[in-house]
Parts: sequence; C-alpha cells; structure tokens
Amino acid sequence: MSETRGYAAQSPESGLAPINFERRELRTDDVAIEIDYCGVCHTDIHFVQNDWGMTSYPVVPGHEIVGRVTAVGGEVTGFKVGDRVGVGCMVDSCRHCHACEDGLEQYCREGPVLTYNGQDRHDGSITFGGYSESVVVSDRFVVRVPDALDMAAAAPLLCAGITTYSPLVHYGVKPGHKVGVVGMGGLGHMGIKFAKALGAEVTVFTRSENKVAEAKRQGADRVIISTDDDQMADAAGALDYILDTVPVQHDLNPYLQTLTYDGTHILVGLLEPVEPPVEGGQLVMQRRVLAGSLIGGMPETQEVLDFCAEHGITCEVEMLDIAKINQAYERVKRGDVKYRFVIDMATLKGSAG
Amino acid sequence: MSETRGYAAQSPESGLAPINFERRELRTDDVAIEIDYCGVCHTDIHFVQNDWGMTSYPVVPGHEIVGRVTAVGGEVTGFKVGDRVGVGCMVDSCRHCHACEDGLEQYCREGPVLTYNGQDRHDGSITFGGYSESVVVSDRFVVRVPDALDMAAAAPLLCAGITTYSPLVHYGVKPGHKVGVVGMGGLGHMGIKFAKALGAEVTVFTRSENKVAEAKRQGADRVIISTDDDQMADAAGALDYILDTVPVQHDLNPYLQTLTYDGTHILVGLLEPVEPPVEGGQLVMQRRVLAGSLIGGMPETQEVLDFCAEHGITCEVEMLDIAKINQAYERVKRGDVKYRFVIDMATLKGSAG
Repeated sequence: MSETRGYAAQSPESGLAPINFERRELRTDDVAIEIDYCGVCHTDIHFVQNDWGMTSYPVVPGHEIVGRVTAVGGEVTGFKVGDRVGVGCMVDSCRHCHACEDGLEQYCREGPVLTYNGQDRHDGSITFGGYSESVVVSDRFVVRVPDALDMAAAAPLLCAGITTYSPLVHYGVKPGHKVGVVGMGGLGHMGIKFAKALGAEVTVFTRSENKVAEAKRQGADRVIISTDDDQMADAAGALDYILDTVPVQHDLNPYLQTLTYDGTHILVGLLEPVEPPVEGGQLVMQRRVLAGSLIGGMPETQEVLDFCAEHGITCEVEMLDIAKINQAYERVKRGDVKYRFVIDMATLKGSAG
Repeated sequence: MSETRGYAAQSPESGLAPINFERRELRTDDVAIEIDYCGVCHTDIHFVQNDWGMTSYPVVPGHEIVGRVTAVGGEVTGFKVGDRVGVGCMVDSCRHCHACEDGLEQYCREGPVLTYNGQDRHDGSITFGGYSESVVVSDRFVVRVPDALDMAAAAPLLCAGITTYSPLVHYGVKPGHKVGVVGMGGLGHMGIKFAKALGAEVTVFTRSENKVAEAKRQGADRVIISTDDDQMADAAGALDYILDTVPVQHDLNPYLQTLTYDGTHILVGLLEPVEPPVEGGQLVMQRRVLAGSLIGGMPETQEVLDFCAEHGITCEVEMLDIAKINQAYERVKRGDVKYRFVIDMATLKGSAG
C-alpha cells in the first residue's frame, strides 16, 4: 500500500476537501500512475451531491485522468515507467462476457467497475478517482497518450471525447453526412470537432443567438436557433444524424423532424424518462432511429486519442487549481466554463498535506 | 373510364355498403387489374371510422390487393394480360427524391399516394382501394404474385407481410439471432414466420397463458408471459431484436430490458406518443436502439412475395363474403380473427348491383 493525497467529499453537503488515503499494492497486471491532470466532468458533481442515490462516502471523483507510469506489475508488458498514459471512466469489468470480448467493457454483463465509487472485483474496496496524486489501474484499462497531444487538453478525451466519438463512428458517420449537434458544452463542442474531422457537414442547434458565433468558431457549418419554429421547419428532413448531448429532459420531436428517413438521433446524456414523449410516428413514418451510447470501450478509447493526435483535435480547457474545485463546481452547474475544467495536479502536490 | 363496383363507407357511422364508381382510363404506364382477393387491415377500420381525422368520404378501403391483369398502357413492358399481380399500400410517389430513388417510396419526401383516400398526383382525384372489382395502378406500384403462392393467402403479404419482413431484413436479422415478437395478430404471426425463415430463434411475448400453444404452433421457440415479472427478469439481456407490432400505447421499458447491448426494438404499429415514456438510460447504458419502420418499398414488396414463395410462407386467412364486411370489422376490433380476413371478390361480383 502507498499513501496518496486527494480531494474527497464526505457527504452531499460537505464540498470537497483534502484527504489522505491508500492506493493498493500492485497486482501483477497493474500500472501505477502519477497523475498530472484530471478533467472535471458533470458526473463528478452528481456523485459528490449523491444526486443518483448511489454514492459511497468519502468519494474521490475524477475519471479523466492523464499522467505518467511510475511502476508496473510483473505481468505488464504494454507499459513501462515514464509512459504517458490515461485512465477513463472504467477500471475493470468481468472480461469474459460478449461485450467484454468485443472490447465494449462499458456494456459488461456484470457492469464495469467505475473509476470512482465503483467496487473492486478482487477485494471489494470502493474505488477512488483521479482528483489525487496517483492511481493504480489494471493495464487493460490504461491507454497511451500520443506524444502529439498536450497532456492537459487530452484529459477530457477520456470521457467527453470518447462519449461523443464512439457513437459517431459506431452509428456510421461518413464524409458528406449531415450531422446535427444539440447542446454545446463539454461534450457538444467535442462532437462538433469529431463530426467535422469525420468529414460531415455540421449543424449546431442552440437556443441562444449569442452562441451562433461561438458555434461557428467551433466549426459548425450552420447554426439553427432551436426555439425559432421557422428555422426548425426549414430544416425538416435535412440531417442524417443528431448527436444529442443534453443531459436533462427535453422534447426530442422537433429534432427528430429534422432527420431524413433512416436518420439517427443519438442520446449520450439523457438517462431520465424521455418526456415529453417521442411520437411513435416520428420513428415509424420515416424509419428513424432513436439510439443511445455510453462512453466507449477500451480499444475505442485508445482510438480516440490516436484520432485526436492525427487530426490535431483537443478539448478546450480551463486550468484549475484544485483548491478552487468547489467554486469550479458552481461554475460548471451554471454552464460557465469553456469547455472543461482540468485540474493541474501540481497544485495538489504543492499544497499543504 | 370504366365503371366498377365496390364497398364504401359514406360517413364514420354508415358502415360499408355497395357503391358504383369509375376507374380511370389507362395512362401509358398503367396496369388494369381484376381483383380476386383483398385483405382486411385494421387501418381500413381507422379510415372508415375517421379515427385519424383525415378521411374523405366516400372511402373504398383495401390495400392488400391481388388479382389478374386485364389491360396495360402503351408503355408498360413488365406486365401483360393474365399476369397474377398484387398492389399494396401505395399507388404513386414523387419518384425523384432520395427515398424514391432508393426504392423506398413509402418514405417519399412528398409523401406516397395511398391506395385509398390518397390524392392522385395527376388529376387530384381521391383514390379508391381494393374492396372492389377492379383497380388501375401505375406499373411501378404493381408486383408479381409468384405461381407458388396461393392468391388469397398472398393478399395480406402486401401489408401485414411487408410491414414485418422489411424491418427484420433492414435492421439485419441473421441466422442465430434471437428475435422477440410482441403482439400476435395479423402482423405478429407473420413476424414469427419471417424471423424463423431468416434463421433466428424466436421468442413470443404474450399476456395470456392461453396463447402459448398457438405461439408455438406458429413457430415460436420460446414464449414469455409478459405480465410475469419473473419471466421477464429471466429474459434480461437475452434478445438481439424485438419486433413490436402493438398499435396502441404500452410500456416499452420491460421489453427494452430483454435486449442485449446493441439490441434493437422495432416499432411497426405504434404511431402515438410513446407513453409510458422510454427511460433514456435503457438506450444509453446498453447502446440499445428504438427504431421504426413503415411497410416497405416496391422492390422489397416484390422481394417478400418471392421470399414467401421460396420458403412456403403464407398468411393464415379466413375467407370473407363482402356482404359480411361490417360484422368482420367488429370481429377485427375484438381481435377475433386468425389472422387476417380476406375478402373473396367473387362474392362482390356475384351480388346484386
């Protein structure tokens, strides 16, 4: 066991504060990582606040982790000390179900082990995430960060990046396709970049005229004000795909209407009941599809990092001193960040213990 | 113009009664057909009753039409007098949009012209359907009935058949896949046969123990009582596809739960708002898809007839004297038919004019 430091919440109301805790001794397949940067995902806030009623306290959030290898277990062949690596939302899975065999560990029949607030399959302990100095993770769940990528800007690729890249590739976005993006936050702005890099023509839906210029700066070919019924009507039947990153309930029907026949509306953020309800006829009458997608498997997670290196794609980030994490959460809740906070873990190492 | 006889409703309350009306002179691409049989689809009842608020009276229903060619227009090369042919739900479309170019006329950008209660694209007249002695249809919308098929049993293939065949093929059902069928009426029993013929293992969901034996007779490998929570829980994650033929609101979530990751729930009957609402998490957490499908295009409609001839598949039908059409409608509304009424048009020809 080795002691490490991090930031944890002790209750839904406590906010985050420094904590000392243990990382396990290396198992034969483990990689020990000194963490350089960790992205701040809205999911972190949900867990800290126990919004989903499943949080074990103390919780150390963080699942957009990048750092350098400091040690490896006896059977690890794919990584060596000094390698630049990343860890995303999962750190283990059953490894033998169809999904795991397909490299889609996020759909593991027994459920993947989450990077924090998950339960270790070997000793039953609760996992602690990346708001910390170090982490120990089984090699299957570690990816390489290509040299061409800036480490800090790469961190959000482990969640926001893979969550938007995976469905665009899986559902078949190809050059010339028309892709709509709903929601222009951490996920949405990555979705724009990926859709463009895949050769698509990108339409951004936004409720605000104020965001038109920013959407175009991100690469949007066209911006539609979703509250303008005329603009929405003009777009009827226009799109092949919609990447819908909105995590709260919203009416999908006006968006479905903008899809061509055989169009696909992909949900990556909405876990709640789909209300207002989807009209069955919106799907049946034009053979449209309402699809879901969750992060991505480990091979795809490596793929998205390599894709970003090749295409010069990074997440736009605002660097964060970990001492300001509680204020940062308030800003995330207000949508006041372009587009992802990334904690500079040097600020933890430098702080009082 | 040539006079023909049929059965029409004059108002939502009138019921159906004999009517004399005109069929158009042959255009150069037209095929004139003497109708031998016409299936009775639940949609006919909705139009007769004006359930969807879009009925023009008088309405002559019927879009599962089989008969023999009696004359062809000057430019028709694919059909000749005496050929056994069929006409389904559409008789025209714009013919130049992407969907039409793809042979998916049902998704025509300008909307297909329905076989009855549609508006002719040339003269603006309202189309009359197959509850009649004869019909005149543009050759693109006429299919051949293979010699191996019984004419009466082939009629429902033009709607019930293609509606279930098309999505199973389009969404990729292959040998070894596990397919669930929800609803065992005219569509559902065809869905079982097609899924089996495509090499799938078929599970039928039914609310009633009484239907278990019948489902197995139709070819089901497994029957699940959908109201039995234990049986539904046992089936969690088991299926690759669900073909959902239920045309009224029902809770999709328990069925979605029976799909594996990447599973596809196909709606072919539900046009209303999907209520109770689908849980977004049911789609996102296992990358499941909620899909729709509407009848099929003309090439597929020919394909399903050929497929049925090859595999010895027919619809189970109860022959009907057209004079009993109103009583038959009451039985359809009660679900009291196995599995499709087919009007023997000889009973119209033999009746008083």
